[in-house]
Amino acid sequence: MTSLDDSQYERKYENNPQAIESDSFRQIRELTDLSGLSQDQQQVVMRVVHSLGLPDVAEQVRFSVNATQAGREALANNGAILCDVEMVKQGVTKRMITREPLCFLNDARTAELAKSKGETRSMAALSLWQQDLAGSVVLIGNAPTALFRLLEMIEQGAPKPALIIGMPVGFVGAAESKDALWQAHETLGIECITLLGRMGGSAVTSASCNALLRCNLGEYY
Amino acid sequence: MTSLDDSQYERKYENNPQAIESDSFRQIRELTDLSGLSQDQQQVVMRVVHSLGLPDVAEQVRFSVNATQAGREALANNGAILCDVEMVKQGVTKRMITREPLCFLNDARTAELAKSKGETRSMAALSLWQQDLAGSVVLIGNAPTALFRLLEMIEQGAPKPALIIGMPVGFVGAAESKDALWQAHETLGIECITLLGRMGGSAVTSASCNALLRCNLGEYY
Repeated sequence: MTSLDDSQYERKYENNPQAIESDSFRQIRELTDLSGLSQDQQQVVMRVVHSLGLPDVAEQVRFSVNATQAGREALANNGAILCDVEMVKQGVTKRMITREPLCFLNDARTAELAKSKGETRSMAALSLWQQDLAGSVVLIGNAPTALFRLLEMIEQGAPKPALIIGMPVGFVGAAESKDALWQAHETLGIECITLLGRMGGSAVTSASCNALLRCNLGEYY
Repeated sequence: MTSLDDSQYERKYENNPQAIESDSFRQIRELTDLSGLSQDQQQVVMRVVHSLGLPDVAEQVRFSVNATQAGREALANNGAILCDVEMVKQGVTKRMITREPLCFLNDARTAELAKSKGETRSMAALSLWQQDLAGSVVLIGNAPTALFRLLEMIEQGAPKPALIIGMPVGFVGAAESKDALWQAHETLGIECITLLGRMGGSAVTSASCNALLRCNLGEYY
């Protein structure tokens, strides 16, 4: 192998970050049905599509009436961001927040509690959310049991988050937990954004929060 | 609201972690075409389906001939795990590894380098992989440019990873970078696992690595 000219090995691909981002969202606008959505809702749906690489998933996104507004206000007011798993927390863009998101899944108290109650750690971790719930933005991207438990807590009188972004993924309870959120939100008086069906995950959940943070910064695609 | 009996607010859902996991994989086996796959390949494909909540995606997974074996050996030998983004690193199950995965995306040298070269930070971060590449397991779940750059580096004579799990997601370069990996792997003599098309992401990439780690522990679904 000669070292005289490594450029012979250079492949052709876009490597300019701004160009990648703008072309991505141009494609997403072309491929996705955004009709009937507000400007802020469009930003969230485009981020959902972007993080999953799947335009069809746009049809599955649901917003309560004041979801984007309530979420933006809570984030602007520096409300707590409560995450079910570390990957969700990791996914929230650091440059756009001043208060570190919270996740208690790996807290020693959580393991103890889960063991003693015979429930998932994801459920047990929510016991440690109580004091931060009021006015918070809740991000659930992994555990259906965390979303079910949160609904129970609110039904039992726990303080209400400003917004629940509930998008757990999977085959057992994920679709059911999101249906439960969507069906209960009006009665419970909570604002929510969800992605119906089995799909979801850490990336799409934090991306939805990032979309609202970007709206607050005036960064629209 | 009465506090006499909170059980009236209890919802019905599976909250036993083992039951959730075993029922998930039972459903995935029912819904997914695993024919023609080795036992280890099945474990990876089931984890891919699990993390995306989408059985159809199984058809898009590709394995080079010795991919699972090479990956298992590298992980058993404590080879470096190199990640393009922090979320991928976060997704590798800690209890199954003794050596912390590496990610240089937020390294100060990376930002400097990206700026001076006018390329993505994801590409620049790979300059810091060189010394750990030999015998490593590479996990690329986010950035097509990282995967393209890695191919260029190997073509230019960089040490070869034992396995590349290349599953970036998105609309610009993602499908193309995975096609490039799949088309070049035999010529370059590299083992790889990839997910063709636009879909991919941090969760599915770390889940594929976790599947191999579980095989090493004898934990099969």
